[in-house]
Amino acid sequence: MAKEITSREENYSQWYNDIANKAELAEASAVRGCMVIKPYGYAIWEKMQAVLDKMFKDTGHVNAYFPLFIPKSFFSREAKHVEGFAKECAIVTHYRLKNDPDGKGVIVDEDARLEEELIVRPTSETIIWNSYKNWIQSWRDLPILINQWANIVRWEMRTRLFLRTAEFLWQEGHTAHATKEEAQQEALRMLDVYVDFVENYMALPVIKGNKTENERFAGAENTYTFESMMQDGKALQSGTSHFLGQNFAKAFDVTFTSKEGKQEYVWATSWGVTTRLIGALIMAHADDNGLILPPKIAPIHVVIVPIYKKVEELKIISEKAAAIKKELEKAGLTVKYDDRDTHKPGWKFAEYELKGVPVRLAIGPRDIENNTLEVARRDTLEKKIISSDTITAYVPQLLEDIQGNIFNKALKFREENTYRVDDWNEFKKIMNGKGGFVYAHWDGTTETELKIKEETKATIRCIPFGTKPETGKCIYTGKPSKQRVLFAVAY
Amino acid sequence: MAKEITSREENYSQWYNDIANKAELAEASAVRGCMVIKPYGYAIWEKMQAVLDKMFKDTGHVNAYFPLFIPKSFFSREAKHVEGFAKECAIVTHYRLKNDPDGKGVIVDEDARLEEELIVRPTSETIIWNSYKNWIQSWRDLPILINQWANIVRWEMRTRLFLRTAEFLWQEGHTAHATKEEAQQEALRMLDVYVDFVENYMALPVIKGNKTENERFAGAENTYTFESMMQDGKALQSGTSHFLGQNFAKAFDVTFTSKEGKQEYVWATSWGVTTRLIGALIMAHADDNGLILPPKIAPIHVVIVPIYKKVEELKIISEKAAAIKKELEKAGLTVKYDDRDTHKPGWKFAEYELKGVPVRLAIGPRDIENNTLEVARRDTLEKKIISSDTITAYVPQLLEDIQGNIFNKALKFREENTYRVDDWNEFKKIMNGKGGFVYAHWDGTTETELKIKEETKATIRCIPFGTKPETGKCIYTGKPSKQRVLFAVAY
Repeated sequence: MAKEITSREENYSQWYNDIANKAELAEASAVRGCMVIKPYGYAIWEKMQAVLDKMFKDTGHVNAYFPLFIPKSFFSREAKHVEGFAKECAIVTHYRLKNDPDGKGVIVDEDARLEEELIVRPTSETIIWNSYKNWIQSWRDLPILINQWANIVRWEMRTRLFLRTAEFLWQEGHTAHATKEEAQQEALRMLDVYVDFVENYMALPVIKGNKTENERFAGAENTYTFESMMQDGKALQSGTSHFLGQNFAKAFDVTFTSKEGKQEYVWATSWGVTTRLIGALIMAHADDNGLILPPKIAPIHVVIVPIYKKVEELKIISEKAAAIKKELEKAGLTVKYDDRDTHKPGWKFAEYELKGVPVRLAIGPRDIENNTLEVARRDTLEKKIISSDTITAYVPQLLEDIQGNIFNKALKFREENTYRVDDWNEFKKIMNGKGGFVYAHWDGTTETELKIKEETKATIRCIPFGTKPETGKCIYTGKPSKQRVLFAVAY
Repeated sequence: MAKEITSREENYSQWYNDIANKAELAEASAVRGCMVIKPYGYAIWEKMQAVLDKMFKDTGHVNAYFPLFIPKSFFSREAKHVEGFAKECAIVTHYRLKNDPDGKGVIVDEDARLEEELIVRPTSETIIWNSYKNWIQSWRDLPILINQWANIVRWEMRTRLFLRTAEFLWQEGHTAHATKEEAQQEALRMLDVYVDFVENYMALPVIKGNKTENERFAGAENTYTFESMMQDGKALQSGTSHFLGQNFAKAFDVTFTSKEGKQEYVWATSWGVTTRLIGALIMAHADDNGLILPPKIAPIHVVIVPIYKKVEELKIISEKAAAIKKELEKAGLTVKYDDRDTHKPGWKFAEYELKGVPVRLAIGPRDIENNTLEVARRDTLEKKIISSDTITAYVPQLLEDIQGNIFNKALKFREENTYRVDDWNEFKKIMNGKGGFVYAHWDGTTETELKIKEETKATIRCIPFGTKPETGKCIYTGKPSKQRVLFAVAY
């Protein structure tokens, strides 16, 4: 039987977990808050990595690898940074186990205590800038454009598969520049790389903007973000790019001799996206039948399922399937032919719907007779009978349609759930009700921001780029405001 | 000026470090025993990963990701496993820092002690088999063929870049099978995948065999290894593949219902190679001028250096270089044109020799006149003048020659330094002198193995596959022996 999924209407949160588990993307592990990313979920991450890695390299970046551990003292050097991360970090204190004298397994050997505790990296600015100190002497050594693919640990108390886990996978870019302008441009360039990826590969429309001071990365002068709407009207921040100013250069004393012969502090950026993107894919696109994967990041584009009763039928179908598979693979597609005899076609249909495979082809004896195939698209669940002669032209076009349709559907949903609000009661009604994005005036103070959060759980997701200046009154305090900002309850 | 490298003859160990540092492969970090893998070193690792990952997938494996942390109690479940790893592991005991009341930075918050300590993975058998327990019920769920790319921590006391570091990168395959035979075949198949990679991509000849009981992986029933000779006559174990029997299935109670309806324990393998392979590349192939990279894993195949005095000359040379670069890239090669005006050609020549770029093309005004190029190969340092018209055919062929030549040179060196020895004094003389591989008789006991190690530092690298049975007397005890085994001092 097909695996059962709770409907979104019944329980959105359970629906999310059901898809993550039953589409075999990830599961909870024996270690509190840490997940196991299962092969199908990891295959999606590999697709994402391949696209992003190419984008990073095309913009001049190279990969490197820095230590997992950070000496405790490094954190204290940048005041806001330590404040931001000290409360949620895994700390290594010892380096040896020994046999329990009581004979019950092993215990920590107290003689093997580290002189200085090590923090499992919650982000790598400090360890990296400590290295950059030795790499940078002159303007000739700049810029440094480095990215790292790594695992990260933040000791979150309330965790959720992909969206918030104690350990997650990510990439973190860390760049060093001679001028403020160049660093600011880099932070914005990488924001645009992310937006290109999320909109054009993940089919997820975003709103770009600045974070408020209160929501900034711990140690940044400015944080750029891109926010997407999930199907419950909440916002999900999928990644951020930070202009770090000279904060880390000053904390680690990283200076360079400029062209003019002066000693100056180096300017920095950092930017990252994480396995959280897989959570965004589920929350934004999936339906009550399972995952819906945008073709550009789907590990399998097309599955072919044979429908047969007799072994002779299977043989003929398999020959035809093999020929089609080969043709589609020539066009650059990943095709799976599932001829397992342990499962019925109906079970397979449900399974690949659950896993979000964009296109399914079914071939039965009648199709062999008529030289046809049944083509089903996952996004709309529509089926069509197509002549075998045209299938290799039809499928790539269909995949493009699906890619576009998934994006447009998400965009339409966002537009239908976005409001301009000037009344506090209306604001509260939306945030406590069906949710959505609200553009509202704000007086620019952290105090007001926090009060709004306290009363509605909504936060300022960003100060959007490119909105027209518009005088108005703060939705909460009535004080003067020059621009609307984007509010939403966020993951 | 070119960066200076200590010669092998002067100080082999310093020569190794000089190359690792000055070719910008890696450097020590602020964290004891942990290295920073610099962009050029990481680019080599990426090339290795790409080839290996494809080989794993071509043999039916998929990637996944399991937690970094392992609950302490998991280790105790497999007695030999905990014995093997307990003494060199990083232990997480707390999950929060707090401000030091003395105002001096941050300290560990003693209120945030974990109920059970977590071990930073020194290998993942235990956490993975704890997951497999939930994944495996029936023979239909088998085999499971999973690989993981990850970071690993083993608290080594004496560390060395790439060869032995507290943290390193690796891949670890963990497979589960219904039968003993299938698991044994898998362990051998992956050994062959590794040997294919090391011999045909890294150009490093190996000797395959079984480890002795004493040298086995902690928890394995059998460990297969492949050993290479370094230029100082020592052996380097580049990777291993283990037949784990049912040890981990029993430790984590992983059973399945067989086709015959019986409950049986699952059979297991694990196998891994690490960033140590980069150390092997240096030690096996590099010379006193720097690294020598086999073309198949070189991040840059060809560097083009312009030789000019006037800007007009550079312009003409650059046009020609761009055309050649484009042609070579069409042939699938990675080409770098280095027209930086901050360094002289001689400096660039030395720099790319240091970095082991297989082929260097130099173009000067006279080459423009004569329609030629100077081609230098890194392995032999030979230079030739080649007509520009034939260069796109010449270079790919040259790269093949270089790949073969590097392998043959290493093979010849190994053969010249391999001995069959039957006399204990001769054995000692070799091991205490210039080193090398020694095939000698051994009585089969761990006791003798350890005594030989104590007296000569030599260990049994493997019981080689495919050697003829041959009766003889143990080199140390004179007791009867049925086969020669391979001895060497090892890294």
